Amino acid sequence: MSTPDMTTAPVAARSTDPLGIEVPSTVPTHWYNLAADLPEPTPPHLHPGTKEPLGPADLAPLFPMALIEQEVTTERYVEIPQTVREIYALWRPSPLIRAHRLERALGSRARIYYKYEGVSPAGSHKPNTAVAQAYYNAVEGVTRLTTETGAGQWGASLSLACALLGMTCEVWQVRSSYDAKPYRRFQMETYGSVCHSSPSELTEAGRAMLAADPDTTGSLGMAISEAVEVAAKDPGAHYSLGSVLNHVMLHQSVIGQEVLVQLEEAGERQADVVFGCAGGGSNLAGLTFPLIGQNLREGTTTRVVACEPAACPSLTQGEYRYDHGDVAGLTPLLKMHTLGKDFVPPAIHAGGLRYHGMAPMVSHALNLGLLSAVAVEQDDAFRAGVQFARAEGIIPAPESTHAVAAAMDHARTAPEGEVIVIGLSGNGVLDLPAYGSYV
Amino acid sequence: MSTPDMTTAPVAARSTDPLGIEVPSTVPTHWYNLAADLPEPTPPHLHPGTKEPLGPADLAPLFPMALIEQEVTTERYVEIPQTVREIYALWRPSPLIRAHRLERALGSRARIYYKYEGVSPAGSHKPNTAVAQAYYNAVEGVTRLTTETGAGQWGASLSLACALLGMTCEVWQVRSSYDAKPYRRFQMETYGSVCHSSPSELTEAGRAMLAADPDTTGSLGMAISEAVEVAAKDPGAHYSLGSVLNHVMLHQSVIGQEVLVQLEEAGERQADVVFGCAGGGSNLAGLTFPLIGQNLREGTTTRVVACEPAACPSLTQGEYRYDHGDVAGLTPLLKMHTLGKDFVPPAIHAGGLRYHGMAPMVSHALNLGLLSAVAVEQDDAFRAGVQFARAEGIIPAPESTHAVAAAMDHARTAPEGEVIVIGLSGNGVLDLPAYGSYV
Repeated sequence: MSTPDMTTAPVAARSTDPLGIEVPSTVPTHWYNLAADLPEPTPPHLHPGTKEPLGPADLAPLFPMALIEQEVTTERYVEIPQTVREIYALWRPSPLIRAHRLERALGSRARIYYKYEGVSPAGSHKPNTAVAQAYYNAVEGVTRLTTETGAGQWGASLSLACALLGMTCEVWQVRSSYDAKPYRRFQMETYGSVCHSSPSELTEAGRAMLAADPDTTGSLGMAISEAVEVAAKDPGAHYSLGSVLNHVMLHQSVIGQEVLVQLEEAGERQADVVFGCAGGGSNLAGLTFPLIGQNLREGTTTRVVACEPAACPSLTQGEYRYDHGDVAGLTPLLKMHTLGKDFVPPAIHAGGLRYHGMAPMVSHALNLGLLSAVAVEQDDAFRAGVQFARAEGIIPAPESTHAVAAAMDHARTAPEGEVIVIGLSGNGVLDLPAYGSYV
Repeated sequence: MSTPDMTTAPVAARSTDPLGIEVPSTVPTHWYNLAADLPEPTPPHLHPGTKEPLGPADLAPLFPMALIEQEVTTERYVEIPQTVREIYALWRPSPLIRAHRLERALGSRARIYYKYEGVSPAGSHKPNTAVAQAYYNAVEGVTRLTTETGAGQWGASLSLACALLGMTCEVWQVRSSYDAKPYRRFQMETYGSVCHSSPSELTEAGRAMLAADPDTTGSLGMAISEAVEVAAKDPGAHYSLGSVLNHVMLHQSVIGQEVLVQLEEAGERQADVVFGCAGGGSNLAGLTFPLIGQNLREGTTTRVVACEPAACPSLTQGEYRYDHGDVAGLTPLLKMHTLGKDFVPPAIHAGGLRYHGMAPMVSHALNLGLLSAVAVEQDDAFRAGVQFARAEGIIPAPESTHAVAAAMDHARTAPEGEVIVIGLSGNGVLDLPAYGSYV
């Protein structure tokens, strides 16, 4: 074997040029934007100092202009760049699978489907926006992205996107996860990313926190501060966020758009009830906003149920008000269902569902009555996840098990022929220790 | 949330009844058997005592009659039971993906495709035979399967199959893996299996080995002895093997049959060169036997390259002779390329490619010149795996990286328009520590 030394840098030259291949028509051509169909607009993000609506200049140090525009656009459809579609085609359309075995196990008279995002190379829905964000940054000449990650789903997804687009990715991972869950770090490093334990000695914020408490286990809020600080100081770098913001909801709409087509192909008139898990809100929005939009435009009657952990119940227990996205209060003020920026959730296994607030668009949709919410206890969630795995084979991500639990509970007594859709936001392969603890 | 207590037992009642659903025509209806097209038959397995060809009665204590028949059949096509096809349909057909980004990264003039078996719920090709084996056992009234596992790919796959068919699965995992790689055990337990560290106190063989060396790290040969002992003593139990045997090669043929159809759909006349990794031989056989059969029947000229680790080079360095499948010499004698049953491979990362012998059908095909073999150094394999991940997104299983490395090496200088197919036998998500060590 020859041994060319090609692995120290990403293999793809940094390039946003399309490959010029024909992408299957089953991969969506446009993102769908619920803002176009809402009866009233989502309240704007506010500047943390002036309390005035954010302008593009406020976001420019951290985000490319294309994403800033997507944050406020009310266009119903935004075209997906060819390069992004070519990458989506590596795993999209993700499968919509009829859960025959689960139906039989539950004795359900409903027809249950699950939309499975775990087929992406990173194992979750997160790459849908990671690829788009990396692309727009690359187009504007940015060569380096920074971000934070907790359990690692988002860091791995942005690492994947950066590898495919030939960019550098630098991730600050909350120390407790960095130490306890090395698999995700190995995944990021395999994609060529650099992963730091946060707080780190590399930033002012990190050094200050370490000085205050050398033994801190870190927090998502601190990791955000580090990633933002580094991006703000480097003209060639930007910061990237994996949930909450409007442009993230937009990118994730490929999920629900595919569901609409796939249900029609399966001969279904509509989804009667859709269950999606909700942490920051991006999976729920991606899965359900296209269906809510159809309700608003065409009079379908799909019910949407957001399934959140009882331990971090922003939708069912939080206040709907302006709040910061981070602990330090440095981010813009977002109108959202929030438990308060200082809320510390107990250490539940569903790492991705521990955010104190909920995406403004999801919060707004709940406030308008376009969706409902339910809180699920962790034990019920894992019990449902295990039962799902033994019936359908796939071990769902701990986040997804909240939707699985609520859907199974509903399906047992659902009327004959009702169409139920479960959003499986990812697989639980790298969360097997949590299953091990449960089993 | 209600909390029904349904997780202590598998959810599906033990049933081989088909669900009665329409399985897509893209899921193969028959397994393909290379034995029908070979110019001379594969040498028979011999009884370890008499050295005479094995009869059905010799295998009956461990295997169901349907599998014993499949072990010796020369029928070209064996019908796949409807229940098995319904389960296959959960992830089959697995995708054949054009590696556009890898082609660009290599500057290759070839068209490179990869056949990706990592989409199965267990993450590898192993469930293709696990489901079939569990099914035939269930049909014959067996309620409990025993097996051994090293790194855990096979144990997880048989656990998955047993969960879907409502059977009990008991796995003896080599102690060193059991201790060092708990994720696979958690996976097996999530599917409802019981997983023991081997050697265990539960068997005579295990107790004897522990008495001789309480600190032993275990071995695959010992784990086989334990699993076989338990199955042989329990009339309701059978033993299951994940590679090497002819019926395993048969079941895996769904891979290559799909490749033939998918290449035709992609407008390709034939695969010019196919690279598959080879440990026990089941992935290689499944991927390539249908193509070799086409060569023999229809005059296509597909070249098949078996890619094995340089550290365990049974095809390129081994002798072609009768040898035992296990260390203790209790199994039938198999005519195979072997490094000798006492060969101990160095501790390489690619756990699935550490077997001392090679499947008799693969060995025979090599001997007949129907395929060739190449040995790949581990560093070259991981380097290729990383490059592949950064170009195509998927992190290949360490086993698969041997095929990736050989294919990439070939592709750099391949002629214009050559069609290359790489077998990706699984993903490397649960092998990320090995990538971490390499990176």
